Amino acid sequence: MSVQRVTVLGAGSWGTTFAKVLADAGRDVTMWARRAEIAEEIRTGHTNTGYLPGVRLPDRLTATADAAEALAGAEAVVLAVPSQSLRANLTGWRDLLPRDAVLVSLAKGVELGTLKRMSEVISEIAGVPAGEIVVVSGPNLAREIAAEQPSAAVLACADHERAVAIQKASANRYFRPYTNTDVVGCELGGACKNVIALSCGMAAGLGFGTNTMATLITRGLAEMARLGAKLGADPLTFAGLAGVGDLVATCSSPLSRNRSFGERIGRGESMGQAQAAAGGQVAEGVMSCRSIRELARGVGADMPITDAMYRVCHEGVDPARVGAELLGRERKHEWS
Amino acid sequence: MSVQRVTVLGAGSWGTTFAKVLADAGRDVTMWARRAEIAEEIRTGHTNTGYLPGVRLPDRLTATADAAEALAGAEAVVLAVPSQSLRANLTGWRDLLPRDAVLVSLAKGVELGTLKRMSEVISEIAGVPAGEIVVVSGPNLAREIAAEQPSAAVLACADHERAVAIQKASANRYFRPYTNTDVVGCELGGACKNVIALSCGMAAGLGFGTNTMATLITRGLAEMARLGAKLGADPLTFAGLAGVGDLVATCSSPLSRNRSFGERIGRGESMGQAQAAAGGQVAEGVMSCRSIRELARGVGADMPITDAMYRVCHEGVDPARVGAELLGRERKHEWS
Repeated sequence: MSVQRVTVLGAGSWGTTFAKVLADAGRDVTMWARRAEIAEEIRTGHTNTGYLPGVRLPDRLTATADAAEALAGAEAVVLAVPSQSLRANLTGWRDLLPRDAVLVSLAKGVELGTLKRMSEVISEIAGVPAGEIVVVSGPNLAREIAAEQPSAAVLACADHERAVAIQKASANRYFRPYTNTDVVGCELGGACKNVIALSCGMAAGLGFGTNTMATLITRGLAEMARLGAKLGADPLTFAGLAGVGDLVATCSSPLSRNRSFGERIGRGESMGQAQAAAGGQVAEGVMSCRSIRELARGVGADMPITDAMYRVCHEGVDPARVGAELLGRERKHEWS
Repeated sequence: MSVQRVTVLGAGSWGTTFAKVLADAGRDVTMWARRAEIAEEIRTGHTNTGYLPGVRLPDRLTATADAAEALAGAEAVVLAVPSQSLRANLTGWRDLLPRDAVLVSLAKGVELGTLKRMSEVISEIAGVPAGEIVVVSGPNLAREIAAEQPSAAVLACADHERAVAIQKASANRYFRPYTNTDVVGCELGGACKNVIALSCGMAAGLGFGTNTMATLITRGLAEMARLGAKLGADPLTFAGLAGVGDLVATCSSPLSRNRSFGERIGRGESMGQAQAAAGGQVAEGVMSCRSIRELARGVGADMPITDAMYRVCHEGVDPARVGAELLGRERKHEWS
């Protein structure tokens, strides 16, 4: 299986960065952008300054605002739209997807209402077996990869051959993708980490330091592994790049939107103020904590940090109060 | 088993902080400081400004430069001296240790030459069964705990009753210790994390960002778990506070001496320059990478980051070169 012609649907920072990675690996890449002016800027100016300021995009990367044009002849289609709008977007593109194109998901989240992971949503809408969808995860801050800093990533697919095809299509001098067959674990890690990053931001906003952040990361990893265990994920995944790697990168980076959003809430801003400061967007973790909490309740997984984030973001509870409650949990032996 | 009278041997930042934790938990604490002026400052001024500037120490914490006086009547003795000088120090104190006192280790490292963990050194010199020694670990940046930021820690001892005794003796409103019986895992995590922090600092000094740091933490965790598996540690320990928790805290903090030392080397300073900048001290990870590498070779554990740090620190290899080699390792599947 060989992939030369790739379409990337979505022109945000991660979609644009992954398109650059593929072009720098020698692929012919066409991006689709919702806004015609962004497609025009990418196609003629080779930049996407709104999302990747200062980054020059490869000449072999082109763009259009016409999805049919973007998708014609694609051997792989990369879905790079926000998780909660993936269903609606993909429904519009369904009839344009070339038969046999490998579908690749960059979206991280659990759908509100259906509680489906992104590969499940794609499978349902595109009518493709879930086991054929490739999921990209790992410690991947878009701006650093766009700056060509050496980065490792995970490509997860039940069908190893498809993961290898995308590995070959994307590996370049600064991007090292590893294959993995645990799609469930990689997707859960990617979704849960946004909620934990939100909590790390909140702790920072409340004035807590590195010990607290490291403790939240550790306990956050434990709670995502508990959810994963209930849903059939491989425990090793959470110890790897799509688990602790992605979690540490997102929680440590000042570039993380979830962390910044949480920091504002921790400092006492309202959800509305934090949203306004984030350019009108609600952080992914704000939505994910609701769907992940429901998913966890359905299978009986204990997720105290996710619960705490839900209470702050959706029930208006004071972050200082949930912080005190988290710290006050009775726990005598580390694993009891 | 009840502990009221505690002696802390060593007055560096972590020893002083742990003495404060114990005093704030209601214990009667006597510290021993090598330098009489530091003992005097702690005893009469209730500060240790050289190590914990701005921190007021509890009134019930006293100090002396006389080890015999410090140790008289102690029900628990906390060893808070650097790992490579623990043997020499303890040899001098051996005959002063009260019979039946619980021995507690704050030292993190693997002894050069003997390749023993700190609890093994203590057992050998003090003539106490290794299974009776309590090891303290976790995400514990001393200055944050001294500022009374809420922190979690791990108290590991094969004899659960002794861990519980120290747990009761140290738990207070800002310090939450959990018990654990995996001494091997906790000690290896504590020793190995200094080497990984050194590598994270080097990466930062070379100009790499958060993705690279997260990747080093992830692969570092994997290599310490491989060593642990060969030496009988519980794999769960590395997923917990003494593994990923301690590792993330040390690697993320600008306060970490290992990280700062590595950063100077990464920026092109010599070992001598970095040592001078650190007040004449070599970072713990510089010594540990040598002993951990030998330990790993003896049991056949693959530790590429530790090897790389050894080559930079002890063979004069350029950090940029080992970085490129680490990134270039052939690895197609994440766990192969």
